[in-house]
Amino acid sequence: MITISEMGRRAKIASRALAAADTALKNKALAAMAQALIDGMDKVLEGNRKDVENGKANGMSVSLLDRLSLDEKRVRGMAQGILDTAALKDPCGEIISGGVGTDGLFIRKVRVPLGVIGIIFEARPNVASDAAALCLKAGNSVILRGGKEAINSNMATIALLRSAVASVGLPEDCIQLVEDTSRESANQLMCCSEWLDVLIPRGGAGLIKAVVQNATVPVIETGTGNCHCFVDESADIAMAADIVFNAKTSRPSVCNALETLLVHKSIAQQALPAIYDRLKEKNVQLRGCEATRAILGDEVLPATEEDYDTEFLDYILACKVVENIDEAISHIERYSTGHSECIVTADYANAGLFTRLVDSAAVYVNASTRYTDGGVFGLGAEIGISTQKLHARGPMGLTELTSMKFIVEGNGQTRG
Amino acid sequence: MITISEMGRRAKIASRALAAADTALKNKALAAMAQALIDGMDKVLEGNRKDVENGKANGMSVSLLDRLSLDEKRVRGMAQGILDTAALKDPCGEIISGGVGTDGLFIRKVRVPLGVIGIIFEARPNVASDAAALCLKAGNSVILRGGKEAINSNMATIALLRSAVASVGLPEDCIQLVEDTSRESANQLMCCSEWLDVLIPRGGAGLIKAVVQNATVPVIETGTGNCHCFVDESADIAMAADIVFNAKTSRPSVCNALETLLVHKSIAQQALPAIYDRLKEKNVQLRGCEATRAILGDEVLPATEEDYDTEFLDYILACKVVENIDEAISHIERYSTGHSECIVTADYANAGLFTRLVDSAAVYVNASTRYTDGGVFGLGAEIGISTQKLHARGPMGLTELTSMKFIVEGNGQTRG
Repeated sequence: MITISEMGRRAKIASRALAAADTALKNKALAAMAQALIDGMDKVLEGNRKDVENGKANGMSVSLLDRLSLDEKRVRGMAQGILDTAALKDPCGEIISGGVGTDGLFIRKVRVPLGVIGIIFEARPNVASDAAALCLKAGNSVILRGGKEAINSNMATIALLRSAVASVGLPEDCIQLVEDTSRESANQLMCCSEWLDVLIPRGGAGLIKAVVQNATVPVIETGTGNCHCFVDESADIAMAADIVFNAKTSRPSVCNALETLLVHKSIAQQALPAIYDRLKEKNVQLRGCEATRAILGDEVLPATEEDYDTEFLDYILACKVVENIDEAISHIERYSTGHSECIVTADYANAGLFTRLVDSAAVYVNASTRYTDGGVFGLGAEIGISTQKLHARGPMGLTELTSMKFIVEGNGQTRG
Repeated sequence: MITISEMGRRAKIASRALAAADTALKNKALAAMAQALIDGMDKVLEGNRKDVENGKANGMSVSLLDRLSLDEKRVRGMAQGILDTAALKDPCGEIISGGVGTDGLFIRKVRVPLGVIGIIFEARPNVASDAAALCLKAGNSVILRGGKEAINSNMATIALLRSAVASVGLPEDCIQLVEDTSRESANQLMCCSEWLDVLIPRGGAGLIKAVVQNATVPVIETGTGNCHCFVDESADIAMAADIVFNAKTSRPSVCNALETLLVHKSIAQQALPAIYDRLKEKNVQLRGCEATRAILGDEVLPATEEDYDTEFLDYILACKVVENIDEAISHIERYSTGHSECIVTADYANAGLFTRLVDSAAVYVNASTRYTDGGVFGLGAEIGISTQKLHARGPMGLTELTSMKFIVEGNGQTRG
């Protein structure tokens, strides 16, 4: 098995060929990758069957097994995802700005690939093909390190994609998979700063924390979402109930799902029962402060400090009655992971205050946090949702997988 | 003395007031800061005298003493730098993109401050005031950690700036100085990821390396420049000599100065003597490969592997004769720090090849690398020159000290 460092070196060499490839060649590679998944469907499904069997033998939960399982339809979806990426505009080569500058120099700032991207992800096998396609379209080599739960699915998928890339004349090392799924391989990838230009961890809070603590490669943190909804004094209660219900229950396992409800004390007596009635339709467990429990009764469990700090990713919602919008904003400041927050209000000034002061990637007025998504925000596709403030924030599309450089042309200028 | 973590907490609180401040208030603070330096000139010069005395007692070199020393003119220059920053356009609040999206949501991507910026710098006392002004204008709190050589100058300067900020009603903790100049304080700042949004090290290769290895705060690497000039077969020799002379000798101690000369073998016999004659005017020491020495003689020292890997920041230039442009590009790929590189050529195809394939922040055709600078590139001022590919590359101005967020307005939308 080759070392991570050797994989990095190969990825860097391959990245030079990719950076020099034009859009047509990259799209040809993507079309071949999609076709390879269709033609090699049996191999992917066979690998996946092994993973699912192992998962069952190891007592994997039903919902995790569902995320892990592939069938013909899902593999076709992976292939379609690659074709969709081919259809997106190539960000590379764009002239971001430029003109004639000091001493008549012609200066232009041009978009270029990042180079080599490392991605550490967990159990979803479709991430391998999605990420490989997005990185390739933006001109980057990628080193994928998936979880052991999906290793056979990933190995089958990546072998097909590599052959497809080679078939159009690009280096197969544009796309590599770390087959060693030990913690050690993840650590080596995080510290491979000689070759990697950026590392994108996709996964739970534990993974993100380990990467932030240990990585020497520049990191883009993604995907932890302790999202809040504040129901202001002036809120339309029916609207608030709709938004909270949608944000909490339409897909509780995703990062833009709601985790904490904050309610202004002046409207709590009316709003909380209306919201709670809706949540009961889906058996959402509420964990509330004393004021919440005084209104809704003892069937609401008492909320602990830890509850406010937790991304449940489940049918559980923390709840707190607050004095005013200032307390709501302070609570969010303290507990939020900086992903998505919402205010439900009819008050113009409070809408402005909330959007200005809440320091998260996406801040909503009167709409569900579930909309935070590359498709909705016009990026076409996304490789993750950044919760950090450097380089990219919120949904990351192809543009966020690029860097830039300055090209300066002269005719002998020297600096006085 | 307060802890770094407590400084971080205070900086975060102050950053909220700054983020809410409008441009007029920030400019008022900057004007007060500039005036405070003029009014408090004696205190700054007194602190600086102590630093210079300590430097002399500790055997500091003449050139370092020169960088450290302040006089009335230099302090006035620091004040003017702050006023120049006040005159720059405020990047905050800019709508980067936006429109009506999915389900009629009104989505806009808005430029916002990064939050809290840590800056670790070495012996130049003007960095403290420059960096404080740029961070404040972009709406960020800053924690400065300068070298012990300039600690008295920095303490006097920052005390004046903090009073000035407070005098216009902004929190003085917008600007803080770490007074403990031990290595431990630098390490604590690098790992203060609870409060810092980004860390910018400004200094030599040793500092940058320590930060990359140890930091848990996101880092923007700046300022190491092992810059190259390739004299192609078709180059105008007089132009090549001018550019190499300017790039090497106009200011050897800065990061955009030339460190390695690469010469095409077909032109070496004519070009090397012409270039060397110019360099001798400034007593530049050449360290060359065998082919260089065969042409120029034994007074050229033999270049070692380490020479090609070194940012001399001095009147020393490494030199190599190469087979062709491919070898030049490969050499740069291997040894460059990704700052600035130049080709001198009359060949259209080679100019294009070099600018496409050389992966550095600034790539020049027929102009001196000394132009890599925020002023020249139209940024107005710079806080450093990024040699990494994430977030910012090349000269960093106010825009590079900001992040963005998405603001989404609706009227009750929920996601289907």
